[in-house]
Amino acid sequence: MNKRMWQQPITKVAPDEVAVRGYRIEALMGQVPFAHVVYLVLKGELPTPSQGRMMDAILVSSVDHGATPPSALAARTVASGGAPLTTGVAAGIMTINRHHGGAIEGCMSLLRQAVARQQESGDSTAEVAQAVVAEARQERRRIPGFGHRIHAHDPRAARLFELARKEGVAGPYVEMAEAIQAALQDALGRPFPINVDGAMAAVLCELDFPTEIGNGLFAISRIVGLTAHVFDEITRQRPMRRISPTDHTYNGPEDREVPR
Amino acid sequence: MNKRMWQQPITKVAPDEVAVRGYRIEALMGQVPFAHVVYLVLKGELPTPSQGRMMDAILVSSVDHGATPPSALAARTVASGGAPLTTGVAAGIMTINRHHGGAIEGCMSLLRQAVARQQESGDSTAEVAQAVVAEARQERRRIPGFGHRIHAHDPRAARLFELARKEGVAGPYVEMAEAIQAALQDALGRPFPINVDGAMAAVLCELDFPTEIGNGLFAISRIVGLTAHVFDEITRQRPMRRISPTDHTYNGPEDREVPR
Amino acid sequence: MNKRMWQQPITKVAPDEVAVRGYRIEALMGQVPFAHVVYLVLKGELPTPSQGRMMDAILVSSVDHGATPPSALAARTVASGGAPLTTGVAAGIMTINRHHGGAIEGCMSLLRQAVARQQESGDSTAEVAQAVVAEARQERRRIPGFGHRIHAHDPRAARLFELARKEGVAGPYVEMAEAIQAALQDALGRPFPINVDGAMAAVLCELDFPTEIGNGLFAISRIVGLTAHVFDEITRQRPMRRISPTDHTYNGPEDREVPR
Amino acid sequence: MNKRMWQQPITKVAPDEVAVRGYRIEALMGQVPFAHVVYLVLKGELPTPSQGRMMDAILVSSVDHGATPPSALAARTVASGGAPLTTGVAAGIMTINRHHGGAIEGCMSLLRQAVARQQESGDSTAEVAQAVVAEARQERRRIPGFGHRIHAHDPRAARLFELARKEGVAGPYVEMAEAIQAALQDALGRPFPINVDGAMAAVLCELDFPTEIGNGLFAISRIVGLTAHVFDEITRQRPMRRISPTDHTYNGPEDREVPR
Repeated sequence: MNKRMWQQPITKVAPDEVAVRGYRIEALMGQVPFAHVVYLVLKGELPTPSQGRMMDAILVSSVDHGATPPSALAARTVASGGAPLTTGVAAGIMTINRHHGGAIEGCMSLLRQAVARQQESGDSTAEVAQAVVAEARQERRRIPGFGHRIHAHDPRAARLFELARKEGVAGPYVEMAEAIQAALQDALGRPFPINVDGAMAAVLCELDFPTEIGNGLFAISRIVGLTAHVFDEITRQRPMRRISPTDHTYNGPEDREVPR
Repeated sequence: MNKRMWQQPITKVAPDEVAVRGYRIEALMGQVPFAHVVYLVLKGELPTPSQGRMMDAILVSSVDHGATPPSALAARTVASGGAPLTTGVAAGIMTINRHHGGAIEGCMSLLRQAVARQQESGDSTAEVAQAVVAEARQERRRIPGFGHRIHAHDPRAARLFELARKEGVAGPYVEMAEAIQAALQDALGRPFPINVDGAMAAVLCELDFPTEIGNGLFAISRIVGLTAHVFDEITRQRPMRRISPTDHTYNGPEDREVPR
Repeated sequence: MNKRMWQQPITKVAPDEVAVRGYRIEALMGQVPFAHVVYLVLKGELPTPSQGRMMDAILVSSVDHGATPPSALAARTVASGGAPLTTGVAAGIMTINRHHGGAIEGCMSLLRQAVARQQESGDSTAEVAQAVVAEARQERRRIPGFGHRIHAHDPRAARLFELARKEGVAGPYVEMAEAIQAALQDALGRPFPINVDGAMAAVLCELDFPTEIGNGLFAISRIVGLTAHVFDEITRQRPMRRISPTDHTYNGPEDREVPR
Repeated sequence: MNKRMWQQPITKVAPDEVAVRGYRIEALMGQVPFAHVVYLVLKGELPTPSQGRMMDAILVSSVDHGATPPSALAARTVASGGAPLTTGVAAGIMTINRHHGGAIEGCMSLLRQAVARQQESGDSTAEVAQAVVAEARQERRRIPGFGHRIHAHDPRAARLFELARKEGVAGPYVEMAEAIQAALQDALGRPFPINVDGAMAAVLCELDFPTEIGNGLFAISRIVGLTAHVFDEITRQRPMRRISPTDHTYNGPEDREVPR
């Protein structure tokens, strides 16, 4: 092989053939759900059905969060200057970073350290969780993935853990996350529960995703909402308007039941 | 309601509640597949099961195309300067435009005009397709969504049409796309078949998506591959390297069967 | 020469040599002012001293416009998510488009058409200007480059025309811009004066810049302010804050005289 | 003042008034050169004439480096997908980061530490420089701002130092940079001279710019070349072409003298 060639292990392209991680795309289509293909492309192997269903729930969990997050505001603002749809969406994606979505990676890193510490020390999960919380409080550090500026009890987090148990995917990371939640409540004297970022973090650790891909997974989920926001901005809003991050309201359908 | 408030119809956020298009996210999780949720967020209503499965196949079809497309190269190049993962991915997203992925919107527009013309004129689908091809050739315009610089027969396009028929979603747009394919073959004396962009375009017309969201749907699919490419660039490649668009090769798993 | 080589006419790079448009950079440094080098890089030739000074004034004129423009808001919003400085600045740059800064290209195009019409028809500048205004009003089109949502009399526009006359650069485009301003006032019964975009447009036409580079020149000027805004956001503001486009104020130095 | 107001110290905008850092823009235009205004906007005060001229030379020094740097390749690649000019330019800007241009900030940080160490320890500049080089070699760290993959002797670096001396701006940071250069040559047994990033770093330290704005200043300079590259890509090159980072050549004017 030519020495000057560089290599990538993701997709093989040859005349009349496109295969990701060894699987021809036309064979995946109609056979393997998109969320499972996301797992395949990022991890290199197909998920088990349970892992695939967890991946699906993760991707659904962060699909949008209204017009409040900086990513939605940045995407709409760029679009409002006249940029094409994909440029606006891209601005939203690049807003996802340390402070926005970044709690996923922060919490993955924390959970990995805590579980390793538990395994090395032989201390109980609860003991390690209490130590982690105490240390953070002493150093006045926030524990990423816990608490939310809007939600007291993030329903997406609870649902993710419920599904993780049902699918048999919950293990030491989910256990540690819940122990930290309990330790936080003890320390603060009030609930300070895990949020969707923290729950995603725990499940992504269970699925053995690398920490550094946390923001990437969040982006794959959130691009859906960002696309809807930019499309709304381009087709329904006035160009060059001043987009208030607070003075807006939802005018879509009322609450309704998901049909079974 | 405050007059100064602006409105968005996508997601309602209230304490302990996040609902997209009226459905609480925790109720969608584990119940409605991610691809169906993409349809919901963009169109405002849940798809029928058949529409949802077509959406899924569309999203899988464009998930990646190796290191050749400008979006993958731009994403890797930006990452190679040291940018964080989401900035690199964003550069890939903004590369998707008129000339890259843009054939989807171009072909949607063409098919919508052709089907309208057929319905208004009373001419047969074949007649309209022949006229469309003849006019394009006379004006030396490419017909977007047909032919491919690498694939003679794009297997993803054929599979998409096969699924559209199976799911009962194929209608006048798929018919017109196939008629144009036949007319092109007649006119050129050799096959010049529909590619994945063209097949996506036809099915998106059947699903009644607005033309202007074509690049957005392509971006929602391709962000998966872009994330994998940027992650590979950051974790496995040398910083500031010169990324050749041609001198690269695939070094992932060999061809393998999708397990059933 | 290798047939596969592609060519660019901007900068030659060889060992121990970097030359833009034929001039070694170290020979330009300390000898040719930055604004004149901008002209050189974009147009391919050094400006005359007068052209260079006009270029300088143009670049100073749009250096910043506070926190109101969408480019500043997008840049700050992206930075507030945790992105590095250059990613935030880039978001600001991509906000500059049809509706933001785009009046420069719109007005250049209009002035070029109007001057061509005047030269072909033999009508007076005032007659063509009146016709242009009448047609726009009939078609309910805005004339780009005139009026401003904040400034009744844009002091930057007046100063640019004053300098253009002083430097002997004012010609048919400046004349036409002023005739349109007069025709607008006649038609509306009140002043609706040229703004900084319109004045930049007229002068860029006099300097023979292509219309399609208008947004690029605006970006070269505005990147300075964007960099200051992003730096302020990163170093002085709270992460993930909600950045209001209206509820902000200036807290820098009081008005002061430029020392001579 | 309203408590909810946020504040920015950069630009005051009021009807018929735009003032940066206290100076009305129309008073700066034609009076203060663009490069000096860059200094003003970023630092908050006008430079002395000498500082302004150094700023000008810095901005000229990095205006372009041909089609090789990742920023130019990313910008052209994004444009080649069909994006508007400013989107392409933005992609170039966001490529400037730790590995591309980042040596400026790296070297500023190193020089600041070395000069502080020299002042605190009372050791000579040469002694500190030798220690810095020895430590870097032991830890197998590159010293940012020294050596270049193309240039053995970067003519832009030499010119910057020559001007710094002429303008009376050279001080402890330029001295330390030159001492490190000498120490590197001693240690390696061959010249490994300072490059343009390193020379910019030393002068920016002399001008008392914060380290964290290094990439921003590089971006303000390089946006000029990026705009020219994107304009060339859009107007002269084929869409969706494969842009080789190596197989390209310069086809602009031959070397010529800067007229005096």
